[in-house]
Amino acid sequence: MGTRGASSAEHFLRAGYAVIFFHREESLKPFSRKFVNLFADIEVIDGKAICTAPGITEAVTEQHKYKDDLCMVPFVTIDDYLHLLEKLCALLANHGRLALLYLAAAVSDFYISQDKMPTHKIQSSDGDLNLSLSVVPKKLGSVISSLVPEAFTISFKLETDESILIKKARGALEKYGHELVIGNVLQMRKRKVVFVELAAAEPIELSDNEVNAGVEIETRIVEELVKKHSVFIENH
Amino acid sequence: MGTRGASSAEHFLRAGYAVIFFHREESLKPFSRKFVNLFADIEVIDGKAICTAPGITEAVTEQHKYKDDLCMVPFVTIDDYLHLLEKLCALLANHGRLALLYLAAAVSDFYISQDKMPTHKIQSSDGDLNLSLSVVPKKLGSVISSLVPEAFTISFKLETDESILIKKARGALEKYGHELVIGNVLQMRKRKVVFVELAAAEPIELSDNEVNAGVEIETRIVEELVKKHSVFIENH
Repeated sequence: MGTRGASSAEHFLRAGYAVIFFHREESLKPFSRKFVNLFADIEVIDGKAICTAPGITEAVTEQHKYKDDLCMVPFVTIDDYLHLLEKLCALLANHGRLALLYLAAAVSDFYISQDKMPTHKIQSSDGDLNLSLSVVPKKLGSVISSLVPEAFTISFKLETDESILIKKARGALEKYGHELVIGNVLQMRKRKVVFVELAAAEPIELSDNEVNAGVEIETRIVEELVKKHSVFIENH
Repeated sequence: MGTRGASSAEHFLRAGYAVIFFHREESLKPFSRKFVNLFADIEVIDGKAICTAPGITEAVTEQHKYKDDLCMVPFVTIDDYLHLLEKLCALLANHGRLALLYLAAAVSDFYISQDKMPTHKIQSSDGDLNLSLSVVPKKLGSVISSLVPEAFTISFKLETDESILIKKARGALEKYGHELVIGNVLQMRKRKVVFVELAAAEPIELSDNEVNAGVEIETRIVEELVKKHSVFIENH
């Protein structure tokens, strides 16, 4: 899957402008994410299966409109993800500052390496279980600095404790040398984020009216990023 | 969700014959389980969203046919599951040997109890992670023997190591005092299972021709169980 995804992404990149969207195989995806249980909304009328979910015709039409611009690349394991990221960054390199990396995938913090996996099912009759998980190697920094040092790179930092968010976000900026961390707090993530740079922290927040009207914070994030990326390109 | 599910199940039970189907909220479900990504199969034709997935009209029609017999009860946590099981068993009790419990839900073997949960996100900067998981209390035996001692009760035992399967299955029969364990081996589970009783172990296996023709082993399992349940009722 990974390899096929990467060739497809390569094709898209060579063909011109494209959004390449890495996603966990089972994650919610653009356009379809509000339609996770469509089977319940299908009625058979005159022998045809008609989907009656509100908004479905608009979502399918919208997806169709962008099908030549959006390349979906699925991954399963952390190794797949890092391999794909490296491959795509190599292809993006000659786009210089025009390239934008939006690293929103929540890559696991911990994992159990293949050589520590048991061969057989763990028996509950053996009593309580102690699991040792290793920290996932932080390869982001080397990928960015060696492959796409000129790109506009955005990563995410999610915390549950708001008091450490800005500090952790700045720590990532210092470690990886990229442009921006979008910080969010689990409980508030659908209505508030903070754009963290080394010298500034700018909150983006929806008003009650916007929340009630169904405005999504992602729309606001993307608008802001388009502006910031334009400034970033011009400043060079 | 749990409480609403239980009231609905209670209504179905009082209304007469019913299949009550406990399932994890996110599990594949009867009828819809082959249609997990329907969004990709929807085309907008003349302003209508038409689903073109092969077999969809048949599956929706089939589900509709059974909608008054099948009660779906979702659960999320192991506590929800055990609570629902207890509540439903209490309602089933006066059906005596006519009741059949088919305990196919893969309930977790291990868990982290609420009081051991961290308040905040675990930081990967603190290094490797050691997790201590407790064995889930085995309440099955007490539920069966105290609430539905007369019911025909079937549980499942999945192993990856075939050599311990029969022994583990008999261990469960001795511990819980129920009628049958359906044993399966992970790698072979779609074509072979073993019906394990204290005095017998009877394999149910699909032939190559059946596998190629798309026969599913669940069909065979249900046919066998209907026969065994009839004998069980008559023998009383």
